[in-house]
Amino acid sequence: MYSLTVSDHIMIAHSFNGVIFGPAQQLHGATYTVEVTVRRAELDADGLVCDIGLALQTLKSVLGEFNYKNLDDLPALRGRNTTTEFLAGEIFRRMKSRILAGGMGLGTADTLSAMRVRLRESPVAWADYEAALS
Amino acid sequence: MYSLTVSDHIMIAHSFNGVIFGPAQQLHGATYTVEVTVRRAELDADGLVCDIGLALQTLKSVLGEFNYKNLDDLPALRGRNTTTEFLAGEIFRRMKSRILAGGMGLGTADTLSAMRVRLRESPVAWADYEAALS
Amino acid sequence: MYSLTVSDHIMIAHSFNGVIFGPAQQLHGATYTVEVTVRRAELDADGLVCDIGLALQTLKSVLGEFNYKNLDDLPALRGRNTTTEFLAGEIFRRMKSRILAGGMGLGTADTLSAMRVRLRESPVAWADYEAALS
Amino acid sequence: MYSLTVSDHIMIAHSFNGVIFGPAQQLHGATYTVEVTVRRAELDADGLVCDIGLALQTLKSVLGEFNYKNLDDLPALRGRNTTTEFLAGEIFRRMKSRILAGGMGLGTADTLSAMRVRLRESPVAWADYEAALS
Amino acid sequence: MYSLTVSDHIMIAHSFNGVIFGPAQQLHGATYTVEVTVRRAELDADGLVCDIGLALQTLKSVLGEFNYKNLDDLPALRGRNTTTEFLAGEIFRRMKSRILAGGMGLGTADTLSAMRVRLRESPVAWADYEAALS
Amino acid sequence: MYSLTVSDHIMIAHSFNGVIFGPAQQLHGATYTVEVTVRRAELDADGLVCDIGLALQTLKSVLGEFNYKNLDDLPALRGRNTTTEFLAGEIFRRMKSRILAGGMGLGTADTLSAMRVRLRESPVAWADYEAALS
Repeated sequence: MYSLTVSDHIMIAHSFNGVIFGPAQQLHGATYTVEVTVRRAELDADGLVCDIGLALQTLKSVLGEFNYKNLDDLPALRGRNTTTEFLAGEIFRRMKSRILAGGMGLGTADTLSAMRVRLRESPVAWADYEAALS
Repeated sequence: MYSLTVSDHIMIAHSFNGVIFGPAQQLHGATYTVEVTVRRAELDADGLVCDIGLALQTLKSVLGEFNYKNLDDLPALRGRNTTTEFLAGEIFRRMKSRILAGGMGLGTADTLSAMRVRLRESPVAWADYEAALS
Repeated sequence: MYSLTVSDHIMIAHSFNGVIFGPAQQLHGATYTVEVTVRRAELDADGLVCDIGLALQTLKSVLGEFNYKNLDDLPALRGRNTTTEFLAGEIFRRMKSRILAGGMGLGTADTLSAMRVRLRESPVAWADYEAALS
Repeated sequence: MYSLTVSDHIMIAHSFNGVIFGPAQQLHGATYTVEVTVRRAELDADGLVCDIGLALQTLKSVLGEFNYKNLDDLPALRGRNTTTEFLAGEIFRRMKSRILAGGMGLGTADTLSAMRVRLRESPVAWADYEAALS
Repeated sequence: MYSLTVSDHIMIAHSFNGVIFGPAQQLHGATYTVEVTVRRAELDADGLVCDIGLALQTLKSVLGEFNYKNLDDLPALRGRNTTTEFLAGEIFRRMKSRILAGGMGLGTADTLSAMRVRLRESPVAWADYEAALS
Repeated sequence: MYSLTVSDHIMIAHSFNGVIFGPAQQLHGATYTVEVTVRRAELDADGLVCDIGLALQTLKSVLGEFNYKNLDDLPALRGRNTTTEFLAGEIFRRMKSRILAGGMGLGTADTLSAMRVRLRESPVAWADYEAALS
């Protein structure tokens, strides 16, 4: 099994709802380093998992929906705690939509078997969401 | 599948028994960066894999049993080579006990499916132990 | 010249005022990794620049004034753009006050010649403030 | 499941064939950080996945076939795009040959269940190849 | 003294001339992570050392003259060993020209006192060039 | 001013004497990542600060005097607290002796103006010693 990972980052504000979050109930923020890994059984005729330029572009486009924003204000995330693990899942879903729509190359969606999204929130904590792509 | 990882570090002394270890048979030491990953199929109602504060606290408590010690002197490790891979397994077992005892939240033990412990011993070497939690 | 550096991190929200900031005029946030370096010509009788435990504690105490907060709401920072470089200076000033007040050991203030504060805001950008301590 | 990872690096030149590669069709190069992970169900009598010294030596020997070279000139790679993912697979195959030939210890080949090779090409991109060893 | 650092990377091929270079006399390559630090005594009215967006753009523009190229083919570098330290100096000179020409903001050249360029060639080696800007 | 940095690491045991050290009075250990930086006003005719291969070799030779040892047992360090900052100074002195003896190239000693030794003891603490070389 081959995989390719590309990485970018965002800077966002948010707050959490629930006593379990302690001081993180207050409005604060994070720099998230986001790593997206796509998996594929065999390489294509060019020797690639997928076009790395398109992968970086697709990731930047998805992250642009969050970057420099207060996530508490985004209608699509209303009522959700935008924890690191939740955001890993949310970015997975948005990347998957774009891949299925051909954004990482026509036919790429059929060849990638799985994807993992990792968000690093600090030097001592990070979270992943991984699932099949088909 | 979601996962959350927390990290901390310890500074220990130890020596190894067996010619395969060469100069590491002598008393020496290591700074181990320790990363603990717990996995869970779905997030809880707060949007969490588990309480990250409790996870960091539990890890610090387990690592406190080793930190600033000569592992050759610990009765529980008597007669074992405390290699990086062995210690990954040992920290896994101690983390698992605490999780089963409710240390990372009541009921958390039932929701976490697996755990991985990684120890980084130097910029060029690290070891993991991973197993199911149930 | 000897130096000792200790590091910790904070997660904050803020916004900037001025068209030069583009999308960063919106409320967003950052994880700042903060590295504080103190310099000293000769080591003390224990072989130290200063007590590393006290240095980490002092840094955590200063950072606690910002951590999990919206910097736009802090009276002391009212009307300031809390850029990475400004915050490096601000943390320098607060660390210096504590050091002069004996927070890193009685007499330590007389032995440390200079201090540098570095804030890393992302994998591709960081800022420093450095000045004499006397 | 236990694993052990060792790491080293190489500096190579190469070019790619195909419009999908854009400017990377030109002769350019890379520093690849190479991480090799071997997996094993149980530790041996010494508490090891395998001899870490032999693992580092075997990796250096495999990497020596590429280091400080123009990969376009290597007969064994003629007609292939030596992408990061392809090279991960190629280094896997060469590591596997040596392991099967006893290069990482007699009998080690029978105990290691799987191996992963990761190549980091830049701070924002890396690729893996992972497969069973038996 | 304040400073701001921005970072980007390039992938190039080159070879060296002289027996001191050993195997690096052969055509090989490198991923260089490039960090540019500019220094300034006091922050401007916006709380900035300089516009971080312009700094990243200027760096990318300078690096574009080398990225995905064989440095042996560049007329401007003819007859020079493009060692890591030489390239640090060369990127300094090109950054300085652009800064003096107003590329990082009109008037910025007068406020920045010094600049340092660092190139990381591998996890175990890097080189700097630093000089005054005026 | 140009500089070149090379890096390697060691794994040692030691203990400290004095109540200020708290639990670090016990026998423990560390992985030290060691970075040595040498400075030079102008590059030599080959475009170098110094021979990077010789620099890495000289560093490995100095570190070999500590690697896999209990520093408490080394006669040359008897009665000293081998703190991170002390060791930075000690490695500086041993590197300087070798440089003056021609170990990094005949005549190199006359061209290098200064040297800095940095030891990283953990992800959150490191120490430097820097001085002129002449």
